[in-house]
Formats: sequence, structure tokens, C-alpha cells
Amino acid sequence: MWLRTSCDMTFNISVPTPFILMLRLRCGAQQWVGREEYRLKPSVPVFEFTDNYGNLCQRLTAPPGAFGIYTAAHVRTADQVDQSPGAPFVEIEYLPNAVLGYLLPSRYCESDRFGQMATEIVAGQQLGYDQVKAIESWLRASIRFEPGDCDIPVSAVEVNMRGWGVCRDLSHLGIALCRSLSIPARLVVGYLYGLHPMDLHAWFEAYIAGHWYTFDATQPELRSGYVVIGYGRDAADVAIYNQFGPPVYPITQNIQVLMIEEKDA
Amino acid sequence: MWLRTSCDMTFNISVPTPFILMLRLRCGAQQWVGREEYRLKPSVPVFEFTDNYGNLCQRLTAPPGAFGIYTAAHVRTADQVDQSPGAPFVEIEYLPNAVLGYLLPSRYCESDRFGQMATEIVAGQQLGYDQVKAIESWLRASIRFEPGDCDIPVSAVEVNMRGWGVCRDLSHLGIALCRSLSIPARLVVGYLYGLHPMDLHAWFEAYIAGHWYTFDATQPELRSGYVVIGYGRDAADVAIYNQFGPPVYPITQNIQVLMIEEKDA
Amino acid sequence: MWLRTSCDMTFNISVPTPFILMLRLRCGAQQWVGREEYRLKPSVPVFEFTDNYGNLCQRLTAPPGAFGIYTAAHVRTADQVDQSPGAPFVEIEYLPNAVLGYLLPSRYCESDRFGQMATEIVAGQQLGYDQVKAIESWLRASIRFEPGDCDIPVSAVEVNMRGWGVCRDLSHLGIALCRSLSIPARLVVGYLYGLHPMDLHAWFEAYIAGHWYTFDATQPELRSGYVVIGYGRDAADVAIYNQFGPPVYPITQNIQVLMIEEKDA
Amino acid sequence: MWLRTSCDMTFNISVPTPFILMLRLRCGAQQWVGREEYRLKPSVPVFEFTDNYGNLCQRLTAPPGAFGIYTAAHVRTADQVDQSPGAPFVEIEYLPNAVLGYLLPSRYCESDRFGQMATEIVAGQQLGYDQVKAIESWLRASIRFEPGDCDIPVSAVEVNMRGWGVCRDLSHLGIALCRSLSIPARLVVGYLYGLHPMDLHAWFEAYIAGHWYTFDATQPELRSGYVVIGYGRDAADVAIYNQFGPPVYPITQNIQVLMIEEKDA
Repeated sequence: MWLRTSCDMTFNISVPTPFILMLRLRCGAQQWVGREEYRLKPSVPVFEFTDNYGNLCQRLTAPPGAFGIYTAAHVRTADQVDQSPGAPFVEIEYLPNAVLGYLLPSRYCESDRFGQMATEIVAGQQLGYDQVKAIESWLRASIRFEPGDCDIPVSAVEVNMRGWGVCRDLSHLGIALCRSLSIPARLVVGYLYGLHPMDLHAWFEAYIAGHWYTFDATQPELRSGYVVIGYGRDAADVAIYNQFGPPVYPITQNIQVLMIEEKDA
Repeated sequence: MWLRTSCDMTFNISVPTPFILMLRLRCGAQQWVGREEYRLKPSVPVFEFTDNYGNLCQRLTAPPGAFGIYTAAHVRTADQVDQSPGAPFVEIEYLPNAVLGYLLPSRYCESDRFGQMATEIVAGQQLGYDQVKAIESWLRASIRFEPGDCDIPVSAVEVNMRGWGVCRDLSHLGIALCRSLSIPARLVVGYLYGLHPMDLHAWFEAYIAGHWYTFDATQPELRSGYVVIGYGRDAADVAIYNQFGPPVYPITQNIQVLMIEEKDA
Repeated sequence: MWLRTSCDMTFNISVPTPFILMLRLRCGAQQWVGREEYRLKPSVPVFEFTDNYGNLCQRLTAPPGAFGIYTAAHVRTADQVDQSPGAPFVEIEYLPNAVLGYLLPSRYCESDRFGQMATEIVAGQQLGYDQVKAIESWLRASIRFEPGDCDIPVSAVEVNMRGWGVCRDLSHLGIALCRSLSIPARLVVGYLYGLHPMDLHAWFEAYIAGHWYTFDATQPELRSGYVVIGYGRDAADVAIYNQFGPPVYPITQNIQVLMIEEKDA
Repeated sequence: MWLRTSCDMTFNISVPTPFILMLRLRCGAQQWVGREEYRLKPSVPVFEFTDNYGNLCQRLTAPPGAFGIYTAAHVRTADQVDQSPGAPFVEIEYLPNAVLGYLLPSRYCESDRFGQMATEIVAGQQLGYDQVKAIESWLRASIRFEPGDCDIPVSAVEVNMRGWGVCRDLSHLGIALCRSLSIPARLVVGYLYGLHPMDLHAWFEAYIAGHWYTFDATQPELRSGYVVIGYGRDAADVAIYNQFGPPVYPITQNIQVLMIEEKDA
């Protein structure tokens, strides 16, 4: 399946404002970027680097005035998202070094506070994939998904207390529950074809049987159409933009995901 | 100054328990490890790796029964800890890539919640070193330092609310305040000569004028005798041990820091 | 200046052949990729990773039959390439850790064999930029540049003996001479606007006064229009493709670099 | 088996001389460092960092006069070195990213020149472990091992032409032959218990069936007692010291490897 994704944001900048963007798509096992556009208005010098999680990040200073960021891509994604009921838990001692960090608590995923609760949610499940599937189902049943934006990110503990959240919040709670069971889990930010209302999206992955599997409690079932922008321990690591100094917010933001023909890709 | 540090811990293990230890000292600008011992009882296979922050970590599985970890080192440390009143703030755009991660909120340092408060604490200070010094003074005056251990780590927000904390907690709050001012800050875990009561210690560093400077609100003034074990964004990254499965706690723990003659080093 | 680069290659594959490509442009201080295309025919699964030098690499297995790789990009490059006569040598002890590897001899740059010769070439020059400029001039005067392809890469020692080489060979010799003077140097592979005959190009950079500066002995003087694909210690690290198994060669290869208007970028 | 290793070197320094040392042992699957000493005379500031291959490196500037480096360690090594006849070749597409660099030619291992020869040496062998064993046997039979030091390192091509070499040279040729068959291979520098005459030692490892296996053509058969100091693509990456400026050589060098009782470790 070929998708055309785009993200168009405008900011109104009052003082020169340093940004770190994370809007360059990555190619991975599940997606191939065949075409990409990345435009800044006005053009400013940009330095790109790879962060600790393998994401491509762009550093720049936005000048005062209107500042526009436009990215678009043609991406081939897998027709089926991998699922693997029964896939076994990986014992800690066999986890790759690079995966260990995804076991630790992080800003929005206080996994050190969820041991008891996670154990109850996954009671009776086989260790591994089925546990995470039970967590995803529990989230779907217990935490109300409210699409839309939320200026102040809240943590898994807070989401759990208030009982509702945006996509990012449900993912944070899912991640915290997984990690409290010693299952490595990470946040993914990206696009989802057919998301309604259309917006940037967040979901989570858990490391089971040597692979990262996709989970998303905001959707009734797992379907194809996910396009990854970046990975991280939680939203603190994987913001599509981090901005420093007096806070600025997008005054316009337009996200699109369209299906295209391979011949037009 | 040459110091002899040692850390001796015993656990009572009921089921095979995976550990990640961080007890191998690092050599840096401020310290040189001239001698080191690292013993496990019983001996078990260990894999050592370097984490994202440059710390040497040891992976192992502790077998049921008594499990002992003993480390000791002879370390030369600087006679004076670097201080630099007036040293200027580094604009975000000039920070090295590797330092950027220390600007982000993390598990125990919710820097996204302290902008207002930090601004008030540093009012009137020159940007940079003097701001952090003001934060350190504020911590010393406002948060009661309670030496000793605390099973459940709390976050900067929680420390600030309750008004007291262990060394790690004061550091977390200091770090959160620095980051909210766009000053990179990190947690350091290690030893401090003359600490009373003797224990493992935690303090923080802030990145100013191209260098990491040491700050410690638990002590009346900055003196020499700091020995670094590891660095990280907060205590989630830089635990001297992470343990997985049913929780186990040291049944004995003995920390020592002695001054020694260079000739005996 | 906006440039449109493209590289179109076709291979005739007889058995499934693993490739590692390095054809995704990087954004750096001197260039911004505003648009990029990357197509494989037929489409095959690709894994992208970042190598030790920061290059984006694509792993894939080409199936038997015709296999096409097509990449194109719109790139903004600096109007002037930085030059800095008189810029001083960086003493080894002040070099960043990440730069140290570029001091060591490598496959095609046997810098351990050129100490005497380099010293003679740079006699009388100020340490740093002017030394490298003298090396570049010496190469221009002493090694005949033969544009075109050369199946078997040769090393700096071999190039020096035979007295002529392709762009890559001149760069290797330049790098070896720099390193033998303790100046870090690396190979750059990319495009050059106005190169005649048009082809992929290679040049070198030397680390002086805290920056990487561009040098190119194949051109009469330094002008703008360089577009970087990748960096490495030498051609062994920074091949635009590495291929394993029975050797295959491009049956067609078409490189283009055009100047475009900013409005069309 | 517990071993006590030591390395004692003295240099006579005429001008301040930057060094990069690689003399801090690593803990890995096969060895555990229970005790370590590292002394410099005179004491100088040292910065330690981890290089691209995971080795701990020490940067320092030796002052004029006598300069001594003394390291010693108590190390537990495996009683048996792993061997695995019949273990299968890993297809390129399944190699971990981090291993790919060990397929490329490097300074002293011109694997791009040995395809034909390697194919003949391993004719009739099963792909994988048995091929490397055949290479090791061929080296033992065809290249005369001359213990001792050799000021100027030579490359695999040169070793093959002259028909003899020190331990490092035989390893380089073995590595070049492996890589030309698409088997990742790396140089190891360290100690070997019972080596005669005693000295620092070098051998090589090949990546087969998901593991790095040890090979050593300088010994009649594989036995235990190997202690690893560092890994790299070849001797250019993994020198126990790199020194910059006018060359200096150890005026004394004393290497020891003793077996010790576990109780004395």
C-alpha cells in the first residue's frame, strides 16, 4: 500500500526561537520512503543529527514572523501489520543491550508504580504477546479515548486517575503497564491512514520474541496504514517538535494521509 | 587527593533475578581510577556494555541464595572542584548534539512544570552559572535534606510539594529547575568523601559555558572529594542497580570512602 | 543555490545479491535537502540504519533480473564554500573524541607511510589550514587527475607510485598526507555542480580550528556546488554501494546535477 | 580459571607527546575483571572514552622525561574456548547492523584482493565455521609464525607475499581471507596464558551462527587462557597505544600472565 502523508504547520514567532524538529521519516522493515519533501519558510540553516533512539532530528532557529514547516512523503507500508498471538516473552538476560533502556520508567511512563495493577490486568495470560494484547484490550475498555489535542501532556499515573486521554496518553499508560511486567515498550509517533479526525497519531510497540510489535488502543482493531515518524521512551523523547524559550504553538496545522497508486508513487 | 571507595552489598535472592549493575567507576577529566576491585559471590557470568550515557553496565542473573556484590577503588580526584561564577549560558543552537537530551523532561524531573517557579528563583541573576547557583541556594534554603534511604523514589514535583528529600530528590528538583530555563542538567551518582552519614550520594551537574559544573544542595558549600560512578538524565537512568522480577533489597550495604596516601594508591 | 541531483543505476543480477546502499543525502551545515526521491525497481524490502560515521545506509537483497536504483534530490547548498587561510592546527589533546578515528591509517590511506614526504610538502607552512592547502596544491601539480571510473580502487601508496588517479585516489593521497601530520581528514562522496565529465565525485575534508574544511585537488580552485552523500575514513567506508557475493557492476549509470530556481525547489 | 595479567612499559619522552592508550580490560561473555590496576608515572590528567568498537580508551599527554604505564588485572576466563564445527554461515541480510563494518576491507586487511585465494583455501568446506577453520589451518601451514616485535606493521597482502609474520600479521591475513568470503572478522588484542615467549598477543574472531568465535593460527590448537584487551577491524583500530608526534618506543616492556588461585583473585 502506498500512502501520501503531509504535515503543514505555521507558527507565529516573536523572538528568535530554537527548535528541534523530528519530521524526517525513517525507513524501516515496515515502510519505505520513496519520496519526501521538507520545506521551511523562510529558509534557515538547519543541522540534522541522529538522536539516541535513531531518529533524524533537525536543529534550527526560527526567526521572528510567520514560520512555516511543510513536509510530505510517499511511503510504502506493509499490507498487514505483524501480529503474533502466543509469541513468548523474552527473558531479561536475552534482551539486546539496545533494548534495555525501554524497560526503565520515563517521564510520562512511571512503570515503577504499576506492578500490581499490570499483574491483575494480565492475569491468566501467557507471558509475552498475549499479555500486551490484554493490556491493549483493557485500555480500550477502561480509558476513554478523546481524539484531539491537549496542550499539557499528562503521565500514565495521571491518565489512569482521570480515565480518559488522547492517543499519546493511552499509549503512555500501555507502555507503563508493559514495562512494569518487564516487557520493553516504546512510543511511536506518526501517521495513520483513515484516522478520524485526521491528525498526527501516537501508538506503542512492545518487544516480544525478538521483534517490536505494534499496539494501538485507540482503534477497534489493528489494521494497516501506520507510518512511523519517530520512536522514543515516551513523548518527551519523540516530540515532532521541541521548542525552547517562550512557548509558541502552531497557529495552523494540517495533516493529511491519502492512499495513492503505486504508479504515482 | 587519593580516595579509597568501597561498596559492599548483600541480597537474599529467592528466584533467579536479572540485574543490571552500574558500579564500575569511570575515568574522566576530574578523576582517575588507579585500582579497582569488583567481586560477585557467587561468581556468575557477566556481560558488560556501555549505555547511552557512557556508563559501564554489568548484566547478570543472580542465583537463589545469598548474593554479594563488592566493589572498591583507589581514585585520584581533583583537589578543587571547578567553579565559575559568571560563566555564561550556552544558547540552544550552540549546544553539542549529545547534550540536547539533557534539556528534556525525564521520569523524575518534570521540567515542563517548573517554568514559572524557576524564573522567580533566578530573578536578577546573570544567565548561566549564577542562575544554577541561585537554584542550589534556593534548594538548600527551601527543601529539607534528610539523609538516608527512601525505597520509593519521588519526582521533582512531589519533592517540591512535600518540602524534603534525600540527596537524589534535591538533585531531581535542581535538574528540573535548570532544564526549565533551557540549561542542560544531569544526575550524578557516586561517592563523597566526608559525607555524613556515609552512603552512596547523588548530586547534579549543569552544562554552562561548554563544561559540566558540579552542584550539590545537600552540602553547605562545594568542596572536593566527589567520585563519579555514573551519569544520566535522572535516577531512572543511573541506578547503581536495576533489578527485575519480584523486588529484592540489600540486606546489608556498607559504603566507605577513605583518604589514602598517594604512595599507597 | 538550489541544485537538483540525480543518480540512476541499473544492475543485471544473476543470483540474489545483498547490497548496502548509501544514497540518501544528509542534511548538514552546508546543505539542506528540500526534496528527495528514492526508487527501487522492482520494489524490495529495505532496512535503513545509521552507520558509525553518521551516514544513512540501506540494506536490501536484489532479486535476479534487472535491478534499478533511482535517487534524486533538490538541495540548497552554500553559495560560498568556507575557506580559512591561517586557521590553526588543533592540538591532539583538544580534538573531540569523535574526530580521533580520522587520524588513524585506513584501508586506502596508509598515513603511517607518509610522514617524511608530508613534512617536505608542507615545509615552511603555518600549522593547520595552510598545510592542507599546500598538500592540495602539491596533489594538483604532481598527481595527474584522470576523470572516469576505475574498477579496482588503489591506495594512497599505489597512487603516489603511479602518479595519476581518479578523484577518489587523489583524495586518498591527500587524506594520508594530512593524517601523517596529525591533521584529521576524511573522504567525502557526493555530487559537484559543473563537474566535467559529470559523474559521482569524491573530495576530502580536514579538521582545522574546530571545523571540517573542504579540499579538492581535482578542480583548479574551490567553488560552490558540492553536495554531500556520505563521509568516511576512506572509500572502504563510504561506497555508494557495497555488494556481496559474485561481483556485479552497473550496466547503466546516469548522474545529473542541474541548477534550479528556488521557486521550483 | 583465574589469571593475573600485567603490562609494564616505560617510554623516554623528549617533547610533550599525546597518547591514546587502550589498556583497560573489558568484561565480556568470556571474561570477568575482578581486579584492575592502572598507574601512570608521573600522574597526568587522563580522559577516558569509549571508541566506535566499544573499547575503553585513555587520552593523555606524556610530559618530557621517563614515562611509565603499568596495568595489571585479575581476570576469570572460560575454562574452554567455544568451538562449533559445522556452525553455519550467516547470510548478509541477517547480520546485525553493528557487524556489517567487519565485512569491509581495512588498513591492514585488504579483503578486496583475496577473493580467488580464499575460495581455493576453503574448497569443499561447509559454509561457516569450517571455512574459517580451514583458513586457520592454511595459515598455520603456509605462513611462518615469527614471535617477537616488528616495528612496521605490514598488511595482509604483504604478509602473504613474504610468507612470515608476527601474531598480528597472521591474524590480518586470516581476517582478510574471511571477509573476502563475506564472513565478518575482527582483530583481538590481548594476553594469552602460556604464550612463549611471553608478550602481548593478537588473534582473530569470526562471526558465525550469531556468535564471535576465536581463531589463532599461531598456536598448534585452540586452548583456554585468552584475555581480551580490545577489538577492532585491524591493528589500526586496536593499538594498545597510539602516539602522535615524533615517534617514541617503549624502552622497557614487561608482560606477564600467571595463573592464580580463585581465593587469591
